[in-house]
Amino acid sequence: MHCWVDGQPADTVPLKDRGLAYGDGLFETIAVKAGRPVLLDRHLQRLEEGCRRLALKVDHSLVRNEVLAYAAGLGEGVLKLILTRGDSLRGYGMNPDAAVRRIVQGSPPASYPLAHGIDGIRLFPCATRLAEQPLLAGLKHLNRLEQVIARAEWQDVEHAEGLMLDMSERVIEGVFSNLFIVSNGLLLTADLKRCGVAGVMRAEILAQAEALGVPVAVADINVEQLRQADEVFVCNSVYGIWPVRECAAMSWSVGPLTRKLQGIVRALLDI
Amino acid sequence: MHCWVDGQPADTVPLKDRGLAYGDGLFETIAVKAGRPVLLDRHLQRLEEGCRRLALKVDHSLVRNEVLAYAAGLGEGVLKLILTRGDSLRGYGMNPDAAVRRIVQGSPPASYPLAHGIDGIRLFPCATRLAEQPLLAGLKHLNRLEQVIARAEWQDVEHAEGLMLDMSERVIEGVFSNLFIVSNGLLLTADLKRCGVAGVMRAEILAQAEALGVPVAVADINVEQLRQADEVFVCNSVYGIWPVRECAAMSWSVGPLTRKLQGIVRALLDI
Repeated sequence: MHCWVDGQPADTVPLKDRGLAYGDGLFETIAVKAGRPVLLDRHLQRLEEGCRRLALKVDHSLVRNEVLAYAAGLGEGVLKLILTRGDSLRGYGMNPDAAVRRIVQGSPPASYPLAHGIDGIRLFPCATRLAEQPLLAGLKHLNRLEQVIARAEWQDVEHAEGLMLDMSERVIEGVFSNLFIVSNGLLLTADLKRCGVAGVMRAEILAQAEALGVPVAVADINVEQLRQADEVFVCNSVYGIWPVRECAAMSWSVGPLTRKLQGIVRALLDI
Repeated sequence: MHCWVDGQPADTVPLKDRGLAYGDGLFETIAVKAGRPVLLDRHLQRLEEGCRRLALKVDHSLVRNEVLAYAAGLGEGVLKLILTRGDSLRGYGMNPDAAVRRIVQGSPPASYPLAHGIDGIRLFPCATRLAEQPLLAGLKHLNRLEQVIARAEWQDVEHAEGLMLDMSERVIEGVFSNLFIVSNGLLLTADLKRCGVAGVMRAEILAQAEALGVPVAVADINVEQLRQADEVFVCNSVYGIWPVRECAAMSWSVGPLTRKLQGIVRALLDI
């Protein structure tokens, strides 16, 4: 299926695009099932928050309608939405008159091994640390060199994801996932006020757990807490939940809360 | 003048380009005088270092030849060279077979007021702090959201540049410049091991000062050192050197070492 740029079929962007020049933009990666974008409201909510923080002005109802229309045509797969600050003048200064560019790309359904969800995965302990930048923390922006470098740390298929800490050795997230731990019945995920991407599936899992009456917390997590956890899992909006069995010398069993949440998320994603 | 992509006239890049998707690439902004790229060896040296650190494989003699040929056609102006990690597969993983994409863009000579160099400038004290990321520090990579946000902090023309500190309140650089101070005869610029861009003009000025027998140092600088400095100036490879007269409540006179270095740099840039 053709990509769309500003609502028109296109496969390129101008060289002047600020997404290319500076990574000046945001993106969303959205699972599409039966022509329907999954968790669309949460994706668009995060996108709006990102636009507000980066001062990107766009017609959000237009974005929603384009995503809905594109997803309907895609049927099954993954929709990637990128918003950039349009074309650049010279230099970092924003052109207040430049229109935000809307890019929609489709790809086939993700082909991760089913065993990742069933048996659980091994995390590679990345040496790359996330820098602490509160102005960008939580956003799914286009400055992703840290993830590129971290993902290049391992090539083997024994590791399905990588664990990322911040500069102060806090446990933050995966390279393309958020991370949860369960400790004494408490469901805990990292506070993302300094770095990290506030994932849509993370938000959904927090809400689902609260609805189940499970105590949840968003707080700093250190490596010792991770080691001592009863359950560990990672999540994102495409694959749902993968239990984590191992990371370096640490290991965990797949636990009941992980399985319960996995069931809920599978129903959402129709996996 | 047309832009070039991989040596061919073009004005667009594919949507799959990793420069757009992740800011996965590097750039150089090169002054062109009489068809000749100024400080080309230093630009290409930094680019090679960046390619090594980001594992971007490219034929550097091809890049050099393209820059030389494009500059010859441009005559007078500014040449922007971008290297990206080519087209992406899905996700952050690098495709080892993807060719690095080479983008060359030209623009007319910069039109900064001459008074900036003659009378000196006022720096805006940016609230945006640079995150500390040693893996990316020094590189002129495409993840530039911090600069975009910082540059948006002021709109008035009274401020020609902005001063950027890091998260630990160290004095690092301008938004699009490096910064030097002179204190008791010592020429000092910030250590860029944690953040900042290691500018080509910064390297040239360090070398020129050493050749003049001026004591130079690359070290951490705090705000008090900046305040107490005898001379302050900013530099980049397009405008050369601008003396700094004021930043918030701090002020300085334009001093003799600034003027001496400015003369050398002006000759290089033929300003």
